[in-house]
Amino acid sequence: MKRAEIIAQIHKKKSFLCVGLDTDLKKIPKFLLDFEDPIFEFNKRIIDATKDFCVAYKPNIAFYEALGVSGWNSLEKTLNYIPSDIFTIADAKRGDIGNTASLYASTFFERYSFDSVTVAPYMGADSVTPFLDHKDKWTILLGLTSNPGSKDFQTQLTIDNEYLYQKVLTVSKSWGSIENTMYVVGATKAELLSEIRSIVPNHFLLVPGVGAQGGSLEDVAKYGINKDVGLLVNSSRGIIYAGKNNDFEILASQSAMTLQKEMAKFL
Amino acid sequence: MKRAEIIAQIHKKKSFLCVGLDTDLKKIPKFLLDFEDPIFEFNKRIIDATKDFCVAYKPNIAFYEALGVSGWNSLEKTLNYIPSDIFTIADAKRGDIGNTASLYASTFFERYSFDSVTVAPYMGADSVTPFLDHKDKWTILLGLTSNPGSKDFQTQLTIDNEYLYQKVLTVSKSWGSIENTMYVVGATKAELLSEIRSIVPNHFLLVPGVGAQGGSLEDVAKYGINKDVGLLVNSSRGIIYAGKNNDFEILASQSAMTLQKEMAKFL
Repeated sequence: MKRAEIIAQIHKKKSFLCVGLDTDLKKIPKFLLDFEDPIFEFNKRIIDATKDFCVAYKPNIAFYEALGVSGWNSLEKTLNYIPSDIFTIADAKRGDIGNTASLYASTFFERYSFDSVTVAPYMGADSVTPFLDHKDKWTILLGLTSNPGSKDFQTQLTIDNEYLYQKVLTVSKSWGSIENTMYVVGATKAELLSEIRSIVPNHFLLVPGVGAQGGSLEDVAKYGINKDVGLLVNSSRGIIYAGKNNDFEILASQSAMTLQKEMAKFL
Repeated sequence: MKRAEIIAQIHKKKSFLCVGLDTDLKKIPKFLLDFEDPIFEFNKRIIDATKDFCVAYKPNIAFYEALGVSGWNSLEKTLNYIPSDIFTIADAKRGDIGNTASLYASTFFERYSFDSVTVAPYMGADSVTPFLDHKDKWTILLGLTSNPGSKDFQTQLTIDNEYLYQKVLTVSKSWGSIENTMYVVGATKAELLSEIRSIVPNHFLLVPGVGAQGGSLEDVAKYGINKDVGLLVNSSRGIIYAGKNNDFEILASQSAMTLQKEMAKFL
């Protein structure tokens, strides 16, 4: 998907919401377990309930991989079910040397037709560029994550007196362009978004951690929006597990709509 | 597998060789493509040919994932075929926040019964500790990798005048112990091994990059061996693709034996 299409969808839907499909057999409504493929059945209903309010879906690959072959099948069916005008993110956080990175890229971009994949930066340029070689596909590099462990290395100062995550942004932004690179920036550090914007003013940022992880949408919008909006804000548990019973679709829909309406105010 | 068992196997076989099962349909002998599961057939024969000369097998997960469901099936069959006294490494380089890291850990340690998995350190402690919670399983953290991109971040100086990879070693060694943590250290930087040994004198190091990637086994042994040996040296292409035809098993066996004999000199 091209950048212009993402921006057009955001304005059309007045939303920069990404719904995280972190689908867990232990958390979905019990009655779905009677279906042949409960994971896909849940995702299908969540997609139907939320597709008018979001511009992206982000399955975290760990949830599917943990189920083995059946999980990969559920993932493939889910991908095929997502409307083609909605951006798809394989939250896989892969990262390996060149020829192996090429294999990961072909897995997610070709076999599963994702528009984008999250990638860890630790191994440097040649672990990332194979993802960038795919036309109209996106690499979403980990910048500053929202978990406590982000302080261990990401917010350590380098000798140039910048944080490691700032160096990651500064160095990696030349590997691709704003047409094929985004960054993960955790919402729990919204006040740092303005500093991040000074390094990558025009890139899209994927912002997890709004809702269950405690980030504020207002702060994210305040510090993160650029002239092209430039944000995809993810919510997973707050939407997909808003309800636990037969009414889960209605509650997921309401939860997504609430976020969409709040987002509309900032557009 | 416990640390003492790994050390015992090394002394028994006079080898610290790990064979990388980076099995690629485009590179295996053509006649194997007629088998129902060419990937497993190749791995089975490579295992038969090399198991007397190595103490570990390391499938790089990207190669299996890229084939979809059939790849995961081939991986599972391969795991079941590896003799139980040989250490197994899922070279997956995963890394995600706590609950997701737990899923990755259960995938590789429980579903596929690997002894260990490689993990990227960028997201910090809570992305790693869920792997460490599994008894008699190992986390192999990326330290200093052998690819050109390792200079982008890993060998950048921090404000404490140490390289990032040194900080990764220093900080992360307290998360687990020498009984459940190893580090990936690329062989192309063998002269740095003595510095690394000053930070982690007793940990096992997984050293890729000997052979095809240009590292010297002699240098690795010289700078890397500790009182418990403390090394697993990986070779992938140099062994598994030593031959391209019907004689590939013999050539793989010879190639593994050559490395084993060289290793025996250092033990």
